[in-house]
Amino acid sequence: MNMGVSNVFKEKFENYDYVDGGVCSPKGFVANGVNCGLRSDKRKNDLAMIFSETVCDTAIVYTQNKVKGAPLTVTKKHMDKSNGKSRAIIVNSKNANTCNANGEEIAEGVSELVAKALGIPTEQVVVGSTGVIGKVIEIEPFANHMEDLVKGLSAAGNEEAAKAIMTTDTIKKEVAVEFKINDVTCRIGGMAKGSGMICPNMATTLSYITTDAAIDQKLLSDILKETVNCTYNCLSIDRDTSTNDMVVVMANGLAGNDMIYTKDDICEVFKKALYIVMLYLTRMLAIDGEGASKFLECSCVGASDVKTSVKIAKSVVSSSLVKCLLYGEDANWGRIMCALGYADCEYDINKVKVSIESEYGKIDICDGDAIIIPFSEEEAAKLLSAKKIYISIDLCQGSKEAKAWGCDLTYDYVKINGDYRT
Amino acid sequence: MNMGVSNVFKEKFENYDYVDGGVCSPKGFVANGVNCGLRSDKRKNDLAMIFSETVCDTAIVYTQNKVKGAPLTVTKKHMDKSNGKSRAIIVNSKNANTCNANGEEIAEGVSELVAKALGIPTEQVVVGSTGVIGKVIEIEPFANHMEDLVKGLSAAGNEEAAKAIMTTDTIKKEVAVEFKINDVTCRIGGMAKGSGMICPNMATTLSYITTDAAIDQKLLSDILKETVNCTYNCLSIDRDTSTNDMVVVMANGLAGNDMIYTKDDICEVFKKALYIVMLYLTRMLAIDGEGASKFLECSCVGASDVKTSVKIAKSVVSSSLVKCLLYGEDANWGRIMCALGYADCEYDINKVKVSIESEYGKIDICDGDAIIIPFSEEEAAKLLSAKKIYISIDLCQGSKEAKAWGCDLTYDYVKINGDYRT
Repeated sequence: MNMGVSNVFKEKFENYDYVDGGVCSPKGFVANGVNCGLRSDKRKNDLAMIFSETVCDTAIVYTQNKVKGAPLTVTKKHMDKSNGKSRAIIVNSKNANTCNANGEEIAEGVSELVAKALGIPTEQVVVGSTGVIGKVIEIEPFANHMEDLVKGLSAAGNEEAAKAIMTTDTIKKEVAVEFKINDVTCRIGGMAKGSGMICPNMATTLSYITTDAAIDQKLLSDILKETVNCTYNCLSIDRDTSTNDMVVVMANGLAGNDMIYTKDDICEVFKKALYIVMLYLTRMLAIDGEGASKFLECSCVGASDVKTSVKIAKSVVSSSLVKCLLYGEDANWGRIMCALGYADCEYDINKVKVSIESEYGKIDICDGDAIIIPFSEEEAAKLLSAKKIYISIDLCQGSKEAKAWGCDLTYDYVKINGDYRT
Repeated sequence: MNMGVSNVFKEKFENYDYVDGGVCSPKGFVANGVNCGLRSDKRKNDLAMIFSETVCDTAIVYTQNKVKGAPLTVTKKHMDKSNGKSRAIIVNSKNANTCNANGEEIAEGVSELVAKALGIPTEQVVVGSTGVIGKVIEIEPFANHMEDLVKGLSAAGNEEAAKAIMTTDTIKKEVAVEFKINDVTCRIGGMAKGSGMICPNMATTLSYITTDAAIDQKLLSDILKETVNCTYNCLSIDRDTSTNDMVVVMANGLAGNDMIYTKDDICEVFKKALYIVMLYLTRMLAIDGEGASKFLECSCVGASDVKTSVKIAKSVVSSSLVKCLLYGEDANWGRIMCALGYADCEYDINKVKVSIESEYGKIDICDGDAIIIPFSEEEAAKLLSAKKIYISIDLCQGSKEAKAWGCDLTYDYVKINGDYRT
């Protein structure tokens, strides 16, 4: 859904300011995007590069799908060899380079092209692909356009890069925030793609994040995992976990802060910045879900543990029937109760409070007795006519909480996916 | 999808013959269906009754959704009190009687009306409801039509009963088979409803099965659970587990066989009959999935255990993207591989063989190396133009197997569920 949403999700957080520039916002990062011929429409980019002027501590989370894209296997080998150090990211759209006989050969070949063009070791290249699975891929498009891609790298290249990783996305997804570590100004920026085949499992979608903060690679890996769990992993467009998901964070340290080594208060400052960037991108992914006309955020508070709140919130945003309820603007609250009820976790349904809210009003659905409260159809119709819907669940059984994100299920989802390859 | 399918799924099994009569096919069962006013179109039934002339050993499996319909709670109380004995089933459609303040009062009230009209103890009544959740329900429609309903009970009433439990179903679902236990002819018949809010979890959908075989109530409960696990529980229309699911088997023993008490060869003869009935109904539920235009059966063989094969087969039939592939007749095999890959179980993806088949041909997708085999688009398009598609997976890692069933995802699913209540 493209409704000029780029600023809609810039939730305010004290001491953190949104800035322009996406992945080029932090010091020392340049980027570019070009059309290399994978996409037949030459006006549309299909190949992106991000490059850091110094070596970066790099944390990556990969999909848990057993069918893994060749680029993930190759990237993992590179990171093992380089001890989590990288300087460049190369990503193509339109072809996932997955389930191909020569997949690893291509991914390694592309990495070598990048390494040669940039004058860096091959193991410092992160390679990603997104698009159709099982489609023949050749090295020529990459070889023929590597020079142009590198030549065009610039500190204003973030937009071209963000566009190049789009598949069925209708809007490019990028964001950056500025914050201080002690008195040192730091920045973190990110871009993501994704619209369908999105269901949380370690990583969801392709996402590339850059920062000029200095942070230890192992610590960065830990906090990336934690932040993925409460952002991308709480997003579901269609419950299909992609084969090519990866989230990459590159930290080049050029901001000049003292290297962060431990989970202290300063680490928390950085972690919150990472959260803000990933939260924004998660919401953008939800609102741009394939065919989506409405955005859904479900919060679950009052749980005895975070896992329970995550499972419940995800169960609600994932339900096909809840998604159809949104699309049809049909106040069939029973479906929300139903999705709550089949969440795979233990809790007492007879304590749960549920409400639904939008810019046009709020309705209490259930008040702790598993009984649906009678409501005004007129008020419900008005509430549901909004583009952004919020469901709140209070289990009243503890103090833990989580949020999950999704969108409605529309004719367009079926249309887009009934004929994706053409 | 209504395409005159009633005979399509009558798979041949030696020593078992399909017979007419549905739930009235076994000796001693009568049934009826009427319109009691829950459905505004008076030509459509909304209230069904099944009655046995003698007391039945009764096995029931209930939904595992935490939000449970009041009829399930009341039925469970009755069965506890009667030690699993029943004589009558009453079921209404159009209103699920779930999340209602007076839900149990209504379900109990309806049971009392039935008991009085039939002259049986209230605890021998099984009560079920299906329809909208959280909608006000009153006793009057039941009270006003109980006499008519009982008066019309007949050995030819199975069709009216099967029609009365339909919601968004486009075809009634009933079947019966005849078989021999030693030299005694026995019958088992069943009916089911269900089209949406269908995802396996202990029971799926409402299903009522009758038999004149004599079988111990505890043993019947055990084999019902086992058979549910490899039939209804392997069916997914939309991954939404209903609040009102129940499967009931009533065994009145009028066939005259020696009571079956133990899991011996004779028990296996009966169990297979139960399986045939439930397999047929499962396939009918899949082909009549909400908005469905195509039927999908996925078999997974060569697994180290049954659970793994079930999880993999279900993962494939549940995938929104695989469902869209079917609808769009788009040979995007990568989605099948993807759904295989995110099944929540352990196996070696690099041994797996996958093929797809229909009446118009067969294509090998993968031959044990996680690489998609090049194929003819023309042959694939022809294959996918069929109404019934079969995906076969051989894990090549053991000898266990399972099947799962589903359908495509269409505009009509979205349409039906965008405006279900009206």
